[in-house]
Amino acid sequence: MSLVVQKYGGTSVGSIERIKAVAERVVESRKRGNDLVVVVSAMAGETNRLFKLAQELSEMPNPRETDVLVSTGEQVSAALLAIRLEALGYPTVSFLAHQLRIATDSNHGRARIRSVESDRVRRALDDGMIAVVAGYQGVDPAGDITTLGRGASDLTAVALAAALHADLCEIYTDVEGVYTADPNIVPGARKLARISYDEMMEMAGLGAKVLQLRSVELAQRYNVPLVVRSSFSSAEGTWVGQGDRSMEDVLVSGVTLDQNQSKITIAGVEDRPGLAAKIFGPIADAGIVVDMIIQNASADGRTDMTFTVARDELRRALDIVKRVAGEIGAQGVRHEDPVAKVSIVGLGMRTHAGVAATMFRVLSDERINIEMIATSEIKVSVVVNAKYGELAMRALHDAFLGGANTASETV
Amino acid sequence: MSLVVQKYGGTSVGSIERIKAVAERVVESRKRGNDLVVVVSAMAGETNRLFKLAQELSEMPNPRETDVLVSTGEQVSAALLAIRLEALGYPTVSFLAHQLRIATDSNHGRARIRSVESDRVRRALDDGMIAVVAGYQGVDPAGDITTLGRGASDLTAVALAAALHADLCEIYTDVEGVYTADPNIVPGARKLARISYDEMMEMAGLGAKVLQLRSVELAQRYNVPLVVRSSFSSAEGTWVGQGDRSMEDVLVSGVTLDQNQSKITIAGVEDRPGLAAKIFGPIADAGIVVDMIIQNASADGRTDMTFTVARDELRRALDIVKRVAGEIGAQGVRHEDPVAKVSIVGLGMRTHAGVAATMFRVLSDERINIEMIATSEIKVSVVVNAKYGELAMRALHDAFLGGANTASETV
Repeated sequence: MSLVVQKYGGTSVGSIERIKAVAERVVESRKRGNDLVVVVSAMAGETNRLFKLAQELSEMPNPRETDVLVSTGEQVSAALLAIRLEALGYPTVSFLAHQLRIATDSNHGRARIRSVESDRVRRALDDGMIAVVAGYQGVDPAGDITTLGRGASDLTAVALAAALHADLCEIYTDVEGVYTADPNIVPGARKLARISYDEMMEMAGLGAKVLQLRSVELAQRYNVPLVVRSSFSSAEGTWVGQGDRSMEDVLVSGVTLDQNQSKITIAGVEDRPGLAAKIFGPIADAGIVVDMIIQNASADGRTDMTFTVARDELRRALDIVKRVAGEIGAQGVRHEDPVAKVSIVGLGMRTHAGVAATMFRVLSDERINIEMIATSEIKVSVVVNAKYGELAMRALHDAFLGGANTASETV
Repeated sequence: MSLVVQKYGGTSVGSIERIKAVAERVVESRKRGNDLVVVVSAMAGETNRLFKLAQELSEMPNPRETDVLVSTGEQVSAALLAIRLEALGYPTVSFLAHQLRIATDSNHGRARIRSVESDRVRRALDDGMIAVVAGYQGVDPAGDITTLGRGASDLTAVALAAALHADLCEIYTDVEGVYTADPNIVPGARKLARISYDEMMEMAGLGAKVLQLRSVELAQRYNVPLVVRSSFSSAEGTWVGQGDRSMEDVLVSGVTLDQNQSKITIAGVEDRPGLAAKIFGPIADAGIVVDMIIQNASADGRTDMTFTVARDELRRALDIVKRVAGEIGAQGVRHEDPVAKVSIVGLGMRTHAGVAATMFRVLSDERINIEMIATSEIKVSVVVNAKYGELAMRALHDAFLGGANTASETV
């Protein structure tokens, strides 16, 4: 008998009919003898509906109260699934974060999990019950409801799997697994049979929406085996776990495209020590995450500093940068919105040289100008003009994944 | 400075625009220097929508999970109102039942309040904040969410007012107060300036929907002064409190009509001791509330037993009664669905004779046949054919409240 944590995303529980289908799938797994903890997201569209209500009442809705509001989405899904499982004759109990409890800090809207008490879930399982848990939410030391950030029901599932030492954490979604690229953009994209935590993290961080970044991080830390699969089909999904040597035979596992980035350039700054701190200190203080940073070579003692932020942070970032630019005597501030960040990811890059060079050549052949470059041990990212994003992605997928050098994927 | 508990019903918070209007009203009261605790219902229609979702998943939705589901309605309203008040610059904090805490038994769907801890609300008020509380919900000893029954946000408000020793509990609704009769049926109905707890309880129990029965009971027990008024106008409402001698000058304070009753008759039962227990024992065991009971005079040693139940309990009651009728050798079971229960209520009945006689004469003059009669110290109820219910109500209102004998109402 295995202990399995299943997580169903918003489209998987997006209607009464879908909830019935999820219940059938849970029952199937139960019939195979598994102990089951089922984490659910809000019904598709519900979280956005609730955020919209808040915004109609306030330009900057109070974060504590916004969490009280939006956490109801998962509460509704959890109750509905439990009602259905009970109706099918399977004793079930739902849990909210404060009941479990999933303890977090007090950063409303993006709280971090501090600990997960699994006693109540464990007792429910020992009593032969199915446990259904509302995803995305936590409770802070004062007993206030928090939320963990968009897509964080994955995180709830992984955290529970870690706390319960689950044998497997299944992430059910509306795609059949992790693909070499977004199939909506790259028709030749293929489902991967396996991918390493490291690669998955890079891909999640680079705009592949199939798994939330923090949840992969947590899965790696506690070595929780993940399977990403579709709740709409019985197809095998993608296994996410520790990488091994054989996975390094594959040069590139995936190509990602992030179209939610904006680029800001502070031009003509006097090049002296402490400059970066002056610029990025206030931005960090405002809680804005800066992604790529490039400082151009300085010729005349002045330099250009270019960086990217998420599109929805652009306005706030620009306000800060314009103020700072005045203080440090910069010649001007420019921005480009949106830009496209295209990345290739693969464990194989650790051991194979020349991957970046190939990437640049492919883009050059397509006459796509590279505006920024950033690399890590297992990925290369470039920023290009937004209108070339999809073309760049397809060209790179053709070059690295279109042929015979794709040992690890199955369709 | 007064401590005021305000309660806003579903139509009062039924839309974003309505929530804005409620926030303005709360702010007005705050500006007058009041400490404020605001209890909210779910947005109009939301509770029904959630119940309907549950019923699409199960014929008999699990009660614990149904409470997890439907309690989200008040959670959403509370958060939205708090967000609005914060946006207007008034520090506000929302509370759910488990945060306060409002402790109940474990009877899901109709839990009874055992205790209300007011410390957290008190601290919030001391810190200069407005407290917004989700109505209708509680938490049981296991930490599970309960609900207190339909209309029970009134109860939440009164319980908090009692626990906090509030100076006033204002019940905001979509009518301007308590009327001598339902103005939709009786055009001449007038708003009462004052009404006693006893009269209000009779009227609430008899189908006047403006205040939930249990909340009036609780208000009386803890002597919480209530005001019922409209959130859509600035008109003075109706004050509900201890009755006094002057209120007894009014013979009849109100006329009510309950069209949600069904009548069941067990005919030709052998008249012997223990009969009533045989019939009503199993009905009580099934949790069905029987309202009026009449046993006709027995001539030939056989008798007819007639009683009323709520319409939505009719089917279950009939199943039980038919089984019992067979066991006790009754000659048959008849039912009438619906019937109309028309009642007159007034403290003055305690000290004035002949009120019931006048009532019967008025109905007789209208050629309305009385099928059942029940009386208490301050009310007389009759059951009549459903089609005469509204006519009976109007005739009785004309007779008792149409003229000069109505000292206590204002318009």
